[in-house]
Amino acid sequence: MCELLGMNCNTPTDVMFSFSGFATRSHEHADGFGIAFFEDRGVRCFIDDQAANCSPIAEMVKRYPIRSTNVVSHIRKATVGRVALENSHPFMRELWGRYWVFAHNGDLKNYHPPLHAAFRPVGDTDSERAFCWLLQEMAKNHARVPTPEELTDTLAELVPRVASFGTFNFVLSNGQALWAHCSTKLQYIVRQHPFAQARLQDEDLTVDFTQHTGPHDRVALIATEPLTSNETWTRMQPSELKVFVDGQPLG
Amino acid sequence: MCELLGMNCNTPTDVMFSFSGFATRSHEHADGFGIAFFEDRGVRCFIDDQAANCSPIAEMVKRYPIRSTNVVSHIRKATVGRVALENSHPFMRELWGRYWVFAHNGDLKNYHPPLHAAFRPVGDTDSERAFCWLLQEMAKNHARVPTPEELTDTLAELVPRVASFGTFNFVLSNGQALWAHCSTKLQYIVRQHPFAQARLQDEDLTVDFTQHTGPHDRVALIATEPLTSNETWTRMQPSELKVFVDGQPLG
Repeated sequence: MCELLGMNCNTPTDVMFSFSGFATRSHEHADGFGIAFFEDRGVRCFIDDQAANCSPIAEMVKRYPIRSTNVVSHIRKATVGRVALENSHPFMRELWGRYWVFAHNGDLKNYHPPLHAAFRPVGDTDSERAFCWLLQEMAKNHARVPTPEELTDTLAELVPRVASFGTFNFVLSNGQALWAHCSTKLQYIVRQHPFAQARLQDEDLTVDFTQHTGPHDRVALIATEPLTSNETWTRMQPSELKVFVDGQPLG
Repeated sequence: MCELLGMNCNTPTDVMFSFSGFATRSHEHADGFGIAFFEDRGVRCFIDDQAANCSPIAEMVKRYPIRSTNVVSHIRKATVGRVALENSHPFMRELWGRYWVFAHNGDLKNYHPPLHAAFRPVGDTDSERAFCWLLQEMAKNHARVPTPEELTDTLAELVPRVASFGTFNFVLSNGQALWAHCSTKLQYIVRQHPFAQARLQDEDLTVDFTQHTGPHDRVALIATEPLTSNETWTRMQPSELKVFVDGQPLG
C-alpha cells in the first residue's frame, strides 16, 4: 500500500521535518517516491523510482529547505503498473493555465474510464487514469479556474464515480488549495499559534515549532497515518472530501 | 541571453560531465536553470530559480548519474517574464499520452498566438506561449504520436510561423527523438566509437570517454556554444531544423 502526504499553509513553509518521517516509511514502500512543491504558480516536482530512504533526490529534498504553500507527496508500493518513472506519483498536468498535482493511495479495480479529451495517461496506473478523467470532467464543468469552493462542489459529484471502483484516497492541489479525499484512511492536523514540540512517529526526532514559526503561521498536514506521536490528528471519514486553504479546512 | 543543452543517445547515458561545464556558465545566466531527463516514457524535470552554480538541485544533478536517452537543459538570463519558478525552462506538457519537454533561447517580440485549445501558459514568457502554440498545432495535425520523420515535417511548417517573431533557438523532446531548431546559434556533435578524451571549455576538467562507453554507444550533444575545446562541433545554419534519433541526426 502506498502512503500520502499533503501540506497546505498560509505562509511558505518547509516540509523537511515531516518528509523525514514520511521517507523513513519507505522501507515498506520501496517502489518509488515523489514530492511536488508549489511556489506561487510554479511547481518543483521530484520523482524517483528508487525508495525514498536511499534516493539521492530524497536526500536532497530532506536537506534543501524548499518553502512552499502546497506540497503533495507519495511513497509507492507497486500494486498496479510496473515500477517505472512514468508510474511514479505525483502526476502533474496543466489545466486553465494552472498546474495540477495529484497523488493516490488505493486500488481501482477494472477502472478504464472514457478518456476522449485532452488528458491521456503516459504510464499504466489506475491512478493516472483517474487523474486524467477528473481533469477531463473538471474542464467540462468550468471554463476557467474555479474558486476552491466551486471546485469542491464539482469534485463532490465526480469523486464518487471513481471511488465506486475501489479505494480512492487522494491529495490534489493547484497551488491555491489542497483537496483530500478519504476512502479508507487519511488523517490531518492543523498547527497554529501557540506552536509546540512535535515528535516524529517513525524517527527519533523532535522539532520545536516555536523556533521556526511566526505567530500568524498556520499549517495543515494530511497523511495516511499520523506522522507525529504527541499530537492529536483528526481521522477523516470514509467518502469525506475536504479542501484546505491557507492552512485550514474550509467549511 | 539564455543557453541551451540537449542530449540524445542510443544507450542511456549520464550527462554529468556536460552539465558541469554548462552549469559553470550560469554566472552570466543567473536567473534559473532547468534540466529534464527522459527515462523511457517517464521524465524527471528539475527546475530552480536560483543560478545553476549555487543551486542545491544543480549540485545533486552534477553528482547523481541519472542515465537518460534524451535530456533537455536550459540556463536562464531573464529578458521576458519575471524571475519565477513558473518561468523556468524546460516546460513540460502531455500530448497523445507522451510527455513533451521544451526549452527556448531567444526573444519573440509581441508574440501572442491564439491559444484556443488544451494548452495554456502558466507563466508569462514568450517561450511557454510558443510551446503551447506548437503543441496545439501539432495536435491538429496528428491524431496520435507521429514518427520522428512525420513530426519533423509538421514542425518544418509550424516553426517558421513562430520564428518570424524573433529569435527561436529551441530543443524539444518526447523521449523518442530530440528536435533542435537554430535561429541564430546552436551547435552539435556526435560522439561514437572510437571515443576519445574531451576537455571542458569552461572548467579545467577532462573526461576520457573510452572509460565510460561501450563500442556501440552513440551520443549527440546540442548546445548554444561548444562545451568542449578539443572537439569539432557542427554549427547549425539559421532556420535549420534537425531531429536526432539514437544519437545521430536523421536525414
